[in-house]
Amino acid sequence: MATSFASAQPAAPVTPASVLAGAPASDWRQIDPDDLLVIDLAGASRVVIELAPAFAPVHVANIHALARAGWYDGLSIERVQDGYVVQWGDPSGAKPLPAGLTTPTPAEYERTAAGLILDALPYRDTYAATVGFVGGLPAAEGDGQAWLVHCYGMVGVGRDFKPDTGSGAELYAVIGQAPRALDRNIAVVGRVLAGMDRLAALPRGGGDLGFYTDPAQRTAIRRVRIAADLPPPERPRFEVLTTGSASFRAWTQARANRLDAFFVRPAAAVDVCNAMPPVRVGAR
Amino acid sequence: MATSFASAQPAAPVTPASVLAGAPASDWRQIDPDDLLVIDLAGASRVVIELAPAFAPVHVANIHALARAGWYDGLSIERVQDGYVVQWGDPSGAKPLPAGLTTPTPAEYERTAAGLILDALPYRDTYAATVGFVGGLPAAEGDGQAWLVHCYGMVGVGRDFKPDTGSGAELYAVIGQAPRALDRNIAVVGRVLAGMDRLAALPRGGGDLGFYTDPAQRTAIRRVRIAADLPPPERPRFEVLTTGSASFRAWTQARANRLDAFFVRPAAAVDVCNAMPPVRVGAR
Repeated sequence: MATSFASAQPAAPVTPASVLAGAPASDWRQIDPDDLLVIDLAGASRVVIELAPAFAPVHVANIHALARAGWYDGLSIERVQDGYVVQWGDPSGAKPLPAGLTTPTPAEYERTAAGLILDALPYRDTYAATVGFVGGLPAAEGDGQAWLVHCYGMVGVGRDFKPDTGSGAELYAVIGQAPRALDRNIAVVGRVLAGMDRLAALPRGGGDLGFYTDPAQRTAIRRVRIAADLPPPERPRFEVLTTGSASFRAWTQARANRLDAFFVRPAAAVDVCNAMPPVRVGAR
Repeated sequence: MATSFASAQPAAPVTPASVLAGAPASDWRQIDPDDLLVIDLAGASRVVIELAPAFAPVHVANIHALARAGWYDGLSIERVQDGYVVQWGDPSGAKPLPAGLTTPTPAEYERTAAGLILDALPYRDTYAATVGFVGGLPAAEGDGQAWLVHCYGMVGVGRDFKPDTGSGAELYAVIGQAPRALDRNIAVVGRVLAGMDRLAALPRGGGDLGFYTDPAQRTAIRRVRIAADLPPPERPRFEVLTTGSASFRAWTQARANRLDAFFVRPAAAVDVCNAMPPVRVGAR
């Protein structure tokens, strides 16, 4: 009977932070520098976006071509609509596109689910039959199709009315509650890995849809490049927790069932946009 | 057979905007000025919050007492954590509370669902059995209990670790994806009706949890009052679309099934935080 006396300290609860601290290096994956779009804004701040060639290959190829041509350099952030999106591109709409782009671009709003590994969350979703992650990005599946989900920080391709699909010249990032009505209606091309703190804090525009009415309110885009094209010292490195790993499953379970001291009643669920895979700066 | 020929113009699609434009005056309800908390910030900007006495009566009474005592005047916005919350109160934590507050405050994190009318959305939710709106505010129901939901723009009472529940001296507003894990863990006391464009655009703090590390980064709170206590010319007026009305049901259906020209594939659903009841400035 002496075996059951509990003089030891109670075990510390499993929390999202404790799971991350204990995740082995093998559960982290370095993101290919060819998939990183690096945007340097005025004021020495930097936004880094992971591109999603598995979902929007033609749009991503266009974005590569635009970055390599230096086409985005000197453009600006022209629209910030509160609780919705921040958008950047060419306010004049008149800058000629460089050669080598595919336009009109196919409507890469969804793709076949065949051949994709979706690490599904075991919780119901308001919009889709299944939600989870593909290659570290939030995704949904239904009717044999798969698509990226418009979570906070996700990046899409601005377009006009159908059948226009956007070339990749105008991009936006989500800055509010996930506007899931846009899913399957726009080409989603990636996720902001760094710089959301800057993008989401920009002054809101006073015009229709949050466009700035005064050009002086725009934030200048100094330079946009693919990380692989930058000299190594300037190249950002990021690692993402692999969503097929035991660490990621434990982390989402800890997010869904918060045992941190602050919480009195765990939710027993977590939505896909509150389970965005953890990212960290990679070692050189 | 001539009766079926369609030479008339096709009917314009029903959109959220067309529903609102056609809503009769009787489907709008003026918000009681006793339920409006008016925060005037440095820089002549104003934040207006609708309080929720039906869910957190003791906390709301404390907030009334703090506002009437002028206790919040001269405090500041001290924390902005990207994608999460902006928080204001007394950074020193040392300002004595006025007389007349109820402390410790009961944990008004949820209440009995009995006696409440919840206008439910017909779509599934990741977290709760039922979601919808009570008195114009987003709410959930389950196990015979009801609680307010942490949508973008909702306001809660900052607290330390349990059993502390917060007095109402520290408040926060949600500025990112709805942090639903906080539901039933914190007293939610209202909804920002105006000023989110300012709150959500504040610079993010560089310290732990987004606290500003330099006091100069804080935004000063000039004055906080209940609207009913302001001279009539200074008193804001707001109306909300009644969630039990036919107009609101048509509006949520139009939000769930976007037929606007931009959309190619309606979602057939809308989550509670993307269906926040429309608000407009009321007539004098």
